[in-house]
Amino acid sequence: MESLIVLKTGSNVIDNPSLLETVLHDFAAWQTPKILVHGGGKIASELMKKLGIVPKMVEGRRITDRETLDIVTMVYAGLINKNVVAKLQSRSCNAIGLTGVDANMIPATKRPVKDIDYGFVGDLTPGCISSDVLGMFIKTGLVPVVAPITHDGAGSLLNTNADTIASAVAVALAKTFRVRLVFCFEKNGVLRNPDDEHSEIDFLNEALYQQYKEEGIITAGMIPKLNNAFAALHSGVDEVRICCPVNLNAGTSIRVERKNV
Amino acid sequence: MESLIVLKTGSNVIDNPSLLETVLHDFAAWQTPKILVHGGGKIASELMKKLGIVPKMVEGRRITDRETLDIVTMVYAGLINKNVVAKLQSRSCNAIGLTGVDANMIPATKRPVKDIDYGFVGDLTPGCISSDVLGMFIKTGLVPVVAPITHDGAGSLLNTNADTIASAVAVALAKTFRVRLVFCFEKNGVLRNPDDEHSEIDFLNEALYQQYKEEGIITAGMIPKLNNAFAALHSGVDEVRICCPVNLNAGTSIRVERKNV
Repeated sequence: MESLIVLKTGSNVIDNPSLLETVLHDFAAWQTPKILVHGGGKIASELMKKLGIVPKMVEGRRITDRETLDIVTMVYAGLINKNVVAKLQSRSCNAIGLTGVDANMIPATKRPVKDIDYGFVGDLTPGCISSDVLGMFIKTGLVPVVAPITHDGAGSLLNTNADTIASAVAVALAKTFRVRLVFCFEKNGVLRNPDDEHSEIDFLNEALYQQYKEEGIITAGMIPKLNNAFAALHSGVDEVRICCPVNLNAGTSIRVERKNV
Repeated sequence: MESLIVLKTGSNVIDNPSLLETVLHDFAAWQTPKILVHGGGKIASELMKKLGIVPKMVEGRRITDRETLDIVTMVYAGLINKNVVAKLQSRSCNAIGLTGVDANMIPATKRPVKDIDYGFVGDLTPGCISSDVLGMFIKTGLVPVVAPITHDGAGSLLNTNADTIASAVAVALAKTFRVRLVFCFEKNGVLRNPDDEHSEIDFLNEALYQQYKEEGIITAGMIPKLNNAFAALHSGVDEVRICCPVNLNAGTSIRVERKNV
């Protein structure tokens, strides 16, 4: 099976020009098929501030009202996506900027209103991403750059978590590729000691994850990220890596035992 | 040769929800391969106003400085492009939103500084558009929706006239399709009498165009648009139509004599 890398970069990379250059340089140099998924929340927040739009929060969670949806669509799908594609094109990487609405690539469901109305937020259902379109782009040598906007199929765009999109894309492509899913964020990896930047754990499997949680080494902040990582691995992704932007091959490598390897 | 329609819609359609619905309804229903090219200058101007950015004008021409480039990238490639794609998807039209930077579809050249520095404005060179990528999308049943942003190949986006992009796309595809290029704008077509909305000319060829110009029937405002239309026809486009949004099959049909028909 051919290898493929799905790289997710967060806001800390996107709004830092020198970090972004470093990541795009390394990404462009990879010779395997690849996909970039980006966020950009900080730049969206800055634009909201300039426009005098006060973020709507309910119980500490951000609400995507109509105004906020327009802002994230402009910033994620327009400003960030197209500038990243232009930078990759200048490095001879034949990037194509996409969102989940393009070619109906990532259909989503508007989050149902229970206690909180999150507004125009899209949730993904397992298996919702067809790998056909992405697979076609990759086979023709194109490099998808995906902004975290999806749609409800009834004409409305939806704001969707970029980590969730990266995992779902990785899982969808795991049917036809051996997929490595790389989350690049502000730390050097999963840290043994949050006060020591250089205490990253090199390798995690489920037994070690369980052990580190019991020993109190891995704590609250990392648990949702790691649970997502293991969910992706159990859905066919070969390896998840959590690392910092300056070394996409370092950080913490996470794998699970395979029955048929 | 298979038929293909390139439809260009301007700001007067894009920022009028009911006109936009009418156009997208008709566009989605067309059974031939098709491409939509859109502008959106009015919405970009409104956002600039909200952000307190004063449009820079030199000798009556708008200058695209860095701030303006960011605004048009957000509005054209983000807000408008993705909302149009979502609306088309809801009508079972498998649209894909693109700009000239995506898949290096429309490489451009930053306009050289002579008397005026237009800033980040991209000019197209004849033949610059490869029909390969667009052709591939169309062959797989996708419907490209193109925002008027191009790039210089060195990492910078460029603001480009949407009429120019529509013509260049039509010419590029005329090698493999019989192309009709439709400009939908605020009038019912090319008018005999600018004060009479219903005085549209049904048909124009070069002899009639020359005659109407000599008779003072066709005057200044329409001449650049018509010169562009005839240039596209001479580069292989089969028909140019200039019409209003409510009837994309009416208006003024423009054709030239063909040696080999």
